[in-house]
Amino acid sequence: MSAADRFSFNHATAKFWDQREAVEACARAGAGIGLWREPLQEMGVEATAKLVQDAGVAVTSLCRGGFFTDPTPEAIADNKRAIEEAAAVGAPTLVLVSGGIPEGGTIDTAREGVRESLAALAPYALDHGVTLAIEPLHPMFASDRCVVTTLAEALDLAAPFAPEAVGVVVDTYHIWWDPQVWQGIARAGAEGRIASFQFADWITPLPAGVLTGRGQLGDGCIDFKRYLTEVNATGFTGPIEVELFNDTLWARPGPEVFAETKTAFENVVS
Amino acid sequence: MSAADRFSFNHATAKFWDQREAVEACARAGAGIGLWREPLQEMGVEATAKLVQDAGVAVTSLCRGGFFTDPTPEAIADNKRAIEEAAAVGAPTLVLVSGGIPEGGTIDTAREGVRESLAALAPYALDHGVTLAIEPLHPMFASDRCVVTTLAEALDLAAPFAPEAVGVVVDTYHIWWDPQVWQGIARAGAEGRIASFQFADWITPLPAGVLTGRGQLGDGCIDFKRYLTEVNATGFTGPIEVELFNDTLWARPGPEVFAETKTAFENVVS
Repeated sequence: MSAADRFSFNHATAKFWDQREAVEACARAGAGIGLWREPLQEMGVEATAKLVQDAGVAVTSLCRGGFFTDPTPEAIADNKRAIEEAAAVGAPTLVLVSGGIPEGGTIDTAREGVRESLAALAPYALDHGVTLAIEPLHPMFASDRCVVTTLAEALDLAAPFAPEAVGVVVDTYHIWWDPQVWQGIARAGAEGRIASFQFADWITPLPAGVLTGRGQLGDGCIDFKRYLTEVNATGFTGPIEVELFNDTLWARPGPEVFAETKTAFENVVS
Repeated sequence: MSAADRFSFNHATAKFWDQREAVEACARAGAGIGLWREPLQEMGVEATAKLVQDAGVAVTSLCRGGFFTDPTPEAIADNKRAIEEAAAVGAPTLVLVSGGIPEGGTIDTAREGVRESLAALAPYALDHGVTLAIEPLHPMFASDRCVVTTLAEALDLAAPFAPEAVGVVVDTYHIWWDPQVWQGIARAGAEGRIASFQFADWITPLPAGVLTGRGQLGDGCIDFKRYLTEVNATGFTGPIEVELFNDTLWARPGPEVFAETKTAFENVVS
């Protein structure tokens, strides 16, 4: 399978595009899709499952669970629902963003919370045939969004569990700066933990709040060909999702964003 | 020496405060000062040297050299001037911010450039009795300001040189998110490489451009007591500089910012 045939469109790239239209566009283009819980719940789990099945589209991931650095019963219950939703729509992977530092805690206690939550959820994920994918986020999100910041840290968190239960996300946007990134990718592959592979480019200046400044592929400084080579070298042959949080893209029509993103993807992998 | 007696005020915390007034305020308070090249050059090297000598103030560092990921003759010459300036004003340390990715390069080639520049500058620094202090910056600056992102990376870069020639900066703001930070500090101490110890707090939301969002000590999520404990445990007994880039602080009168910062420092270390 050529790299161009591995394209999957994460719905968040065209955040305000109707889920049905996005799925149907992916079907027509032979692309996979990464779904999000909010539009899925709005349409309903069964209706979404029927939509993707009728369209014949591969759901490459569900975004997202996590936010469980404080492992409350509510947080665990919500993540179990997310696992059920992933299983229902045929998503092999549930992406987990850990959450930030809880009130009164430190980054160290927050990381302890992540360990506890994973232990509470891993058997449930395994029972449902869903792999939990720990996503290291860029360290600029470490206090308020994700205390997991490197591939090595994500792999250490995943280590106590079977690779079918807990893997990691390799997202270029979040890890490109890491001087240990190539070692991290090789290790993730060797340990069978690559549960999701995502592309977004790094551009500056960052906007206020830093959440919505991801660049279209090719607009920034990330060497996607090298990422593809290094991940391929581990034997990983799965889909490559493009997930861009970008206010300018979000303001544009979904079909246009989809077409542009598909072309940009083909350019950076060819 | 108690921690409170190790306070040094980095001039950038009150960026627009006259250098003479800042030095004299530090003298009255028994504090050290971290100087910057621009105000130093504006006053003149000899005049600044006389100012700090007359005031009896310890210059704890000069900020900053670096920006040499492209190791051009101009970049090397400018860093040699910075070394001369540091020596002239009695600063034991020249802080180095590496710079970002040069046009047409990648983060890997930029890191190669840092290695070359350090090799060109280390003997000159040693001859002048100035230690070059490689500062890992937060990874959100990795493309446009500093490709060195972790203590481990900074220590690897410093390793070929004598600790008197090349050390590292331990700045809480830039490294607090790192899951390997305690190991990094222990290693930096064991290798005799702690050339500067700086405090700033991490607060969110980050402002656009992310440069000027550093928090006053105690306003954010950083556990300064633990940093003090871990750095003390290595045997390091040098000054602790407070360096805050913050638009709100910069808009206020220098004496007020100085007094507030000194109190905040005493609170977080007591």
